[in-house]
Amino acid sequence: MEVNIQFPDGSIKRYQEGVTLEEIAQGISPSLRKKVIAGMVNGMMVDLGREIRNDASIQLIERNSEEGIKIMRHSTAHVLAQAIKRLYHHVDLSIGPVIENGFYYDVDVPESITVKDLGKIEKEMKKIVAENLPIKREEWSREEAKQVFAKAPYKLELLDAIPSEEKITVYRQGEFYDLCRGPHVPSTGFVREFKLTHVSGAYWRGDSNNKMLQRVYGVAFPTKEELEEYFHFLEEAAKRNHRKLGSELELFMFFEEAPGMPFYLTNGQLIRNELETFLRKIQNSFDYKEVRTPIMMNQRLWEQSGHWDHYKDNMYFSEVDEHSFALKPMNCPGHMLIFKDKLRSYRDLPIRMAEFGQVHRHEFSGALNGLLRVRSFCQDDAHIFVTPEQIEEEISSALQLIDYVYKVFGFDYRIELSTRPEDYMGEEALWDRAEGSLVNVLNKLGLPFQVNEGDGAFYGPKIDIHIKDSLKRSHQCATVQLDFQMPEKFDLSYIDEHNKKVRPVVIHRAVFGSIDRFLGILIEHFGGAFPAWLAPVQVKVIPVSKDVHHEYAMKLKQLLKKDEVRVEVDLRDEKLGYKIREAQMKKIPYVLVVGDREQEHHSVSVRQYGSENVMDMDFDQFTNVLLEKIVDKK
Amino acid sequence: MEVNIQFPDGSIKRYQEGVTLEEIAQGISPSLRKKVIAGMVNGMMVDLGREIRNDASIQLIERNSEEGIKIMRHSTAHVLAQAIKRLYHHVDLSIGPVIENGFYYDVDVPESITVKDLGKIEKEMKKIVAENLPIKREEWSREEAKQVFAKAPYKLELLDAIPSEEKITVYRQGEFYDLCRGPHVPSTGFVREFKLTHVSGAYWRGDSNNKMLQRVYGVAFPTKEELEEYFHFLEEAAKRNHRKLGSELELFMFFEEAPGMPFYLTNGQLIRNELETFLRKIQNSFDYKEVRTPIMMNQRLWEQSGHWDHYKDNMYFSEVDEHSFALKPMNCPGHMLIFKDKLRSYRDLPIRMAEFGQVHRHEFSGALNGLLRVRSFCQDDAHIFVTPEQIEEEISSALQLIDYVYKVFGFDYRIELSTRPEDYMGEEALWDRAEGSLVNVLNKLGLPFQVNEGDGAFYGPKIDIHIKDSLKRSHQCATVQLDFQMPEKFDLSYIDEHNKKVRPVVIHRAVFGSIDRFLGILIEHFGGAFPAWLAPVQVKVIPVSKDVHHEYAMKLKQLLKKDEVRVEVDLRDEKLGYKIREAQMKKIPYVLVVGDREQEHHSVSVRQYGSENVMDMDFDQFTNVLLEKIVDKK
Repeated sequence: MEVNIQFPDGSIKRYQEGVTLEEIAQGISPSLRKKVIAGMVNGMMVDLGREIRNDASIQLIERNSEEGIKIMRHSTAHVLAQAIKRLYHHVDLSIGPVIENGFYYDVDVPESITVKDLGKIEKEMKKIVAENLPIKREEWSREEAKQVFAKAPYKLELLDAIPSEEKITVYRQGEFYDLCRGPHVPSTGFVREFKLTHVSGAYWRGDSNNKMLQRVYGVAFPTKEELEEYFHFLEEAAKRNHRKLGSELELFMFFEEAPGMPFYLTNGQLIRNELETFLRKIQNSFDYKEVRTPIMMNQRLWEQSGHWDHYKDNMYFSEVDEHSFALKPMNCPGHMLIFKDKLRSYRDLPIRMAEFGQVHRHEFSGALNGLLRVRSFCQDDAHIFVTPEQIEEEISSALQLIDYVYKVFGFDYRIELSTRPEDYMGEEALWDRAEGSLVNVLNKLGLPFQVNEGDGAFYGPKIDIHIKDSLKRSHQCATVQLDFQMPEKFDLSYIDEHNKKVRPVVIHRAVFGSIDRFLGILIEHFGGAFPAWLAPVQVKVIPVSKDVHHEYAMKLKQLLKKDEVRVEVDLRDEKLGYKIREAQMKKIPYVLVVGDREQEHHSVSVRQYGSENVMDMDFDQFTNVLLEKIVDKK
Repeated sequence: MEVNIQFPDGSIKRYQEGVTLEEIAQGISPSLRKKVIAGMVNGMMVDLGREIRNDASIQLIERNSEEGIKIMRHSTAHVLAQAIKRLYHHVDLSIGPVIENGFYYDVDVPESITVKDLGKIEKEMKKIVAENLPIKREEWSREEAKQVFAKAPYKLELLDAIPSEEKITVYRQGEFYDLCRGPHVPSTGFVREFKLTHVSGAYWRGDSNNKMLQRVYGVAFPTKEELEEYFHFLEEAAKRNHRKLGSELELFMFFEEAPGMPFYLTNGQLIRNELETFLRKIQNSFDYKEVRTPIMMNQRLWEQSGHWDHYKDNMYFSEVDEHSFALKPMNCPGHMLIFKDKLRSYRDLPIRMAEFGQVHRHEFSGALNGLLRVRSFCQDDAHIFVTPEQIEEEISSALQLIDYVYKVFGFDYRIELSTRPEDYMGEEALWDRAEGSLVNVLNKLGLPFQVNEGDGAFYGPKIDIHIKDSLKRSHQCATVQLDFQMPEKFDLSYIDEHNKKVRPVVIHRAVFGSIDRFLGILIEHFGGAFPAWLAPVQVKVIPVSKDVHHEYAMKLKQLLKKDEVRVEVDLRDEKLGYKIREAQMKKIPYVLVVGDREQEHHSVSVRQYGSENVMDMDFDQFTNVLLEKIVDKK
């Protein structure tokens, strides 16, 4: 008997019934055989050794593909469990899934496993890999499984949870076997570069009424380079962690009196102000008009805007004169009121209404993460009221503004266009035209983008912009969204050239998104070493001798302050070397050491952050270089 | 028999028993007799005709003194009542007190009195004044009074309320008499310049369960000039009313969705930003450090700070994760947390912690008044943490900063020093020293001040600064307060030079007080005609012909924008004159009209707001003048 096997490209080949994926790969080419570790049969992921007994469509999974790596990580978890079984006497296994970058296994052993034990376990794991034990899938009857796992309480519970129509499968490698759906790599030799990282407690099924098990974590990658890169990234990310730097550089802090609501210290506030001033100036040049609306408004307004229906669980409420008021989670409704209050003509449009608005949105306390996820933040919000004909031009202008801003920070970015979802509101024709406009604009600007079909908001299609930071991590910050609903809900109109009342379209737009979160990203992006224009202290002047060069140092300070440079003089009773090191620890862009020679020549000895060189410069020349950097935001 | 009469200067003269104040005045000089209208006997205010039967100390009240004017206004109220009695048939009088600038009388008449009737009443009043009826005081028995007022229900009630030990007095002028404590002018001829202003409803005793009476209002002044000046002031104040100008100049608005919480439109927000930037820059030069703390914090914190006990009725609350949070009414507690979080040394002090903090404080809806009284505002707050030795220097520096700022706006101001109240907290010696310091500082700076004995806050003495606007109205804005309690409540400390933990003192300080209220005051102070640096639009360019001079106008706009001037070009299809008038209505500081000649010479024809002249200027010269004015905040 033969079976028809369909490949991803649509081609169909005939094979002997019972052929395995491994044999099919080998048949195509021995080199392919080496690359694949599993496959899909009719959309189900299976081992390479699976025999095919009916017509099927298949797909081979390569070792270095995303799915391939996940399978390898899963097999590594089994190798971990096997090693623990070999090393400890009374081991009850629970579950061992794949997680980002690696895997874990929850085990119940009487001894407590510490980080010190991980080396020993890793060694045993490597032995198992070297043994290259074939990994075999077995189908068991439920009865058989219950007998074999009679003394494995967690496995018994897992077994009970398997639906009766589902097959019970066990994977076996050498003396080790485990209840598992698979698939796995063909043999333990396929397990690649791994490292156990840490151990933590974990309740069985995550329920604190249950026993606390020990969870051993590990990471695994296809190559040694990738493993090393991962640890390098971790190290770098830890060094750049914005909460750590936030504390070291005295940028911001949190108190338990206001979880998720940042307190900005002077240094952080200086940067915030620079960011705000910078954007305000650019927005001004793009003819935005700034407004400021209240922090809280009557609940009625939020019912009208739809936030009450769609967002109230994330909103905070208060009471004013026995009426329920909500702290604004967004600025839109306030802007709608302002637009609506005046008779608008087509000649007035577009109106670009901007606000640096402090919004409050509830987040679970467990989800809070420094500045990256907070409960109160300042949104650099804008609503652009346009005629349908102006959509393209205004979207284009918003994207150019965003591009300008991101370039200043050295951010690369990628663009996602999200289109009409199933539960869209409004006319289909308007949606089509709007989506067409967005595509047009992106094409005209030559910006590559990815389409997320059906992922738009119910009120309109949107463009999201994801920046890539210096560690290549992606953060969604800017957004440009078309909104056909808000004008409807607030019954907005303008008078068109034929003296007719027409509904405007609203474009929601943010560049930073949240100034607070953007600052968090910037801290990590720059690793705390801010460019001069953002640095809280731009110049530190250190006199070689506090007594002799004090006056010259203070004179330089005065001169720099006149140019609005943020400058400090270190006059403490400390050694010169200590002061220089400390200034560098604080990542101050320029350290000026001044002694006899500098005083005599009205010069400075310049240490630029991140450079080994010490440069002697005329003071005025230094000032010019510095001011140019600040103005140009280099 | 003779009596000893002591005068305010301490001198004593002997007079015949039964001498009246009038006779005493006449005896001193006939011209004095003409100036006085009442007097004080042993501290009690009495009529000029009062006979003195025992030794007494006396004081004469002149017609133009504050008290004299009040008495004259009170007598004018009687003249009003008399006139109404003459003109209407069934009149029941209730009360007729003196108020700011005038008086009113509440009357119960079947007819409704309207503004149209006021002329007729005034005419009758003038007749009564011309009749120059002597005003006589009579002492009645309670029985007699009850009989006479038997059909005057309000007087009867008033009569019942007079304590039994008090004399019942009635004032009589011609056919008119009224239950009244007095004193009054000697005759109706002493009533001076008055005018009835309006009528309103008023419940008897202010209780809406009682009958609604008709309240007739009037104003009265010693001279015609003062009366006219008063109406001129009203007119001017109405023209400058910040709510009216706020709407005309599109500065801000209110919506019923957020009563008492301003929405700033672009023009208002531009001014706010200028004010904030200006103060931030000056504070920077005074070495303030800006921070930013959350809008809401856990109720616990407000219990600790004492706001819960003393201020909770004015606070708004919300719930976060089932805990009660309060919207901050002040920024202090947040700043205390920041100070406390770090070990502080005496070398670190003073720490000048500033914040532009948005605070929320409940006000009754009836008390709301545009920007002058709101429920949410931005406070230009600072807390200065000092050693006791630094108090004087820091208070002095704060006062100098305030002086600098107020001079820029052209505000005169007066200073009030409020000292230890009865319920003061803390050591008396510290209070004495602190009050001494404040007096010292004020003297050293040569600043005159008025002492409000016992009017300080329970936590420390304070200096309040009252600015006087261009209409000579007084507004309390800046404040400098010493606080010994907050450091106690938050257990703040620093390490002194002997390595000992010591409690710092906190100075609360605000310059604008509330940016919102200060803006309201500025609008009225400048009557909306802001100096160039504050004006939302600084320059309006109007081409003589839209078609011919469009390009030149746009070029000027670009040049001015480069210098960060807020400039607009008027390209509408309107007449030149109309455009100029409109720009002047909007109180734009500079209107530049450009035509052939200007285009040819790169010049502009300048109309400065408030000046009749039109000046032809070279454009670069104009730009220099303008930029200088903006930089110098002239």
